Amino acid sequence: MDVRQLLLLAGTMLAQLAGPVFAQDANQPYVRVAEIEIDPSQLAAYTAAVKEQIEAAVQLEAGVLGLYAVADQDNPAQVVVFEMYADLDAYKTHLETAHFKKYKVSTQDMVKSLRLRETVPLHLSAKRR
Amino acid sequence: MDVRQLLLLAGTMLAQLAGPVFAQDANQPYVRVAEIEIDPSQLAAYTAAVKEQIEAAVQLEAGVLGLYAVADQDNPAQVVVFEMYADLDAYKTHLETAHFKKYKVSTQDMVKSLRLRETVPLHLSAKRR
Repeated sequence: MDVRQLLLLAGTMLAQLAGPVFAQDANQPYVRVAEIEIDPSQLAAYTAAVKEQIEAAVQLEAGVLGLYAVADQDNPAQVVVFEMYADLDAYKTHLETAHFKKYKVSTQDMVKSLRLRETVPLHLSAKRR
Repeated sequence: MDVRQLLLLAGTMLAQLAGPVFAQDANQPYVRVAEIEIDPSQLAAYTAAVKEQIEAAVQLEAGVLGLYAVADQDNPAQVVVFEMYADLDAYKTHLETAHFKKYKVSTQDMVKSLRLRETVPLHLSAKRR
């Protein structure tokens, strides 16, 4: 068990102490919210890279349920990516894929700051298509 | 045309000046990100209310594509709701529904702060179910 897994376990135990509402449900997706500040001069290139990464991940990875990248209307350099994986293992698998690694390398000089928020779903619902 | 519509139009025009990448595409969903701080003592009640609201909206409203409510793992009082509507009109319709109004009234004393971010989709993709 590495540090990250240990922190996750501790967080899950604390969440369970807080009551069933925030307990991690094994059947619930694993959801992350990435807040990314992009170099304004590289927005178009960043958008192309994130689009390519998202398409590959959703098409190729069974555990990637949805990836939604949006930019603030008032400040397009502020990007949010809402990420839904089947579970934590699916997320770990995603980090090891060629398309994700390509995205990380190709955007490393476009990203000015990155805040990754781990979350617990309260309720997730979408239209069936 | 009201003030909100005028601001949206102005924003869209500015976005178009910035290049096609961030132009509002009429066929793209209208996406908002709500960041909500909940009174920690009322998390369970808030979760029940947001769940009821989301289920009603997705089931009853044609223009509600998806509503995803999650809580920070480290601080469950920090909630993010990722909201996807067919278009701006669908969002306006949503605000007038009985279930949304019930949610707003029932949670008004649970919500300590609310930040609503209007966004432009960069890329949205999810598994077909």
